[in-house]
Amino acid sequence: MSEAPNTISWTGGGDGFLTLLDQTRLPGETAYLNCEDVESVYDAIKRLAVRGAPAIGIAAAYGVCLATRETSSLTEARTAALAACDRLAESRPTAVNLFWALERMRGVITAMADDTPVVQFAKRLAGEARAIHDEDRAQCAAIGRHGAELLAEVVPPGGGVLTHCNTGALATGGDGTALAVLFALHRARQESNQSFTVFADETRPLLQGARLTMWELIERGVPATLICDSMAAQVMREGRVQAVIVGADRIAANGDAANKIGTYGLAVLAKHHGVPFYVAAPSTTFDLELASGDEIPIEERAAEEITDGFGRRTAPEGAQVYNPAFDVAPAALVTAIITERGVISPVTGEEVAAIVGTEIPA
Amino acid sequence: MSEAPNTISWTGGGDGFLTLLDQTRLPGETAYLNCEDVESVYDAIKRLAVRGAPAIGIAAAYGVCLATRETSSLTEARTAALAACDRLAESRPTAVNLFWALERMRGVITAMADDTPVVQFAKRLAGEARAIHDEDRAQCAAIGRHGAELLAEVVPPGGGVLTHCNTGALATGGDGTALAVLFALHRARQESNQSFTVFADETRPLLQGARLTMWELIERGVPATLICDSMAAQVMREGRVQAVIVGADRIAANGDAANKIGTYGLAVLAKHHGVPFYVAAPSTTFDLELASGDEIPIEERAAEEITDGFGRRTAPEGAQVYNPAFDVAPAALVTAIITERGVISPVTGEEVAAIVGTEIPA
Repeated sequence: MSEAPNTISWTGGGDGFLTLLDQTRLPGETAYLNCEDVESVYDAIKRLAVRGAPAIGIAAAYGVCLATRETSSLTEARTAALAACDRLAESRPTAVNLFWALERMRGVITAMADDTPVVQFAKRLAGEARAIHDEDRAQCAAIGRHGAELLAEVVPPGGGVLTHCNTGALATGGDGTALAVLFALHRARQESNQSFTVFADETRPLLQGARLTMWELIERGVPATLICDSMAAQVMREGRVQAVIVGADRIAANGDAANKIGTYGLAVLAKHHGVPFYVAAPSTTFDLELASGDEIPIEERAAEEITDGFGRRTAPEGAQVYNPAFDVAPAALVTAIITERGVISPVTGEEVAAIVGTEIPA
Repeated sequence: MSEAPNTISWTGGGDGFLTLLDQTRLPGETAYLNCEDVESVYDAIKRLAVRGAPAIGIAAAYGVCLATRETSSLTEARTAALAACDRLAESRPTAVNLFWALERMRGVITAMADDTPVVQFAKRLAGEARAIHDEDRAQCAAIGRHGAELLAEVVPPGGGVLTHCNTGALATGGDGTALAVLFALHRARQESNQSFTVFADETRPLLQGARLTMWELIERGVPATLICDSMAAQVMREGRVQAVIVGADRIAANGDAANKIGTYGLAVLAKHHGVPFYVAAPSTTFDLELASGDEIPIEERAAEEITDGFGRRTAPEGAQVYNPAFDVAPAALVTAIITERGVISPVTGEEVAAIVGTEIPA
């Protein structure tokens, strides 16, 4: 199995810069963006050059570090860093990892003593961003382990698993969330030639499944078949998949999970076909202040994503469009949530609290 | 409400020619194809320049007429016409209207007396094709009437109806099947300003919903909102639609209805949300020789429809693809089937037989 792509990297120390793999140009081109100021990170998140809840959080944390460049006093650096937190928080509304990462950076910014030299301040910020990145990598690995154990019992050799959107190395600091599970299961079965096929929903409107998930699966040698989102029900009916696994952008205290539009429908279809439906996400994706998914803000994106998706206009001029970017899979339709701390099942408020409700000592 | 587009027309008598609105170029261009031989009609059906079950049947019937051009004896004309029937039957496998129309043309070809002059033979064939066309137009109108009556009770003023693929004037010889119902309901409510919104699934991979249905709805002034197929569940959950209505390509004796891929999933989702699910189709779409939908052949189409759909490659090279063009909504999930002869509800073999099981005297 080949290496994960280099989605996000930081070069240098406190005065370093951020490099992002520009995901809008995949799979045709593997191009990198160097970000040397906050605004370019804001822009990269907004236009989905970097996307996926954990990856957005990591990129934003590094983005805060860029604010201290060209500041000469601690007051100036601190003001600029806090302003960067505010600015980056406006980039996208649904993924909670963004706000979590920025909150963590804010904590470091405000905790630093007033006599800290600027160089030290910048170094400490970069250290925190790198820690967020490293922790996410470790969380991906743990999610992969827990999930592969769970799916090993459900997916027979030669079977299939359906996934939606992209939840791999491109969406995180490590191997992914839902895709990390599939990579781990594939790795475990590869030697005995008893692997399985991943059915990847293309994931309209922006085709993260076709462009990104298929790219990752092919690059890493996992058998994969691309389908349109509208074919998922038929694939289930034909018995081609024994599990559905997706990521999440925000999970409420009761286990309701917001994820890429189309996820809710998949959860209903999986229920109808008796196919287990799994959500894989790190504990940083939980927002325990929200009682249920009804409180999760859902981003609506531009009509052009649907009408002018890929190089040509495919709807009449003047067409009215509805383009919600996310929906919510209710806890009752989720078989289990796989986190780095363990598996939440059944998905209830009590189980969520038991697994992710308390801080884990560092 | 403006006029229906001129999807299919025949110019002249027995030695006339066929003109098709090239639907692959909508909505950007309104271009027409003149077909003067069988092969160009075969090609137009195969590459979806003309599509929609009833429209395919009508185009094929006219296609048979073109076979008699440049024949000089009845034997020659008859052989050519029968060969045209065989050839056109190979164009697409799922829509039964194609086979029904060709069977009807075959009946005329073989019934003609051996001393019929070629000119007379050609004229008689063109007459039969025109009759199929005219009958379909009348069937569309009747479906519209019956369906609008049914939906009037379900869809409140200001409400919504979800549809999939294209089932309008572009898919038939008249106003459509499912869209004819929506046109009729809109017409009835227009004056009192109590209309409703049509939510049109874009219908991947070929975007008949975005390109064709939205075009027809906008051209004819019906309020319409375009969504991706993956958004239908969310639209139902938000209570934006009180009914789903689709067409069909072939309906078995038990009421199982094959239609554009994605229809089956919609039927499951509608059931889950308590939204009635209607199929609108003329009696020519029924294939009573098939006991159930399991026997309906499902066309698989080229991978490029998914990987290269929008003018550029949107999946990695070498991506494996599964592209079934149709699926089957089982009778148990269909609230009613609206035909020109009346409404089949509940959808059972007995009710199907009662409404469309016997020939109606001409």
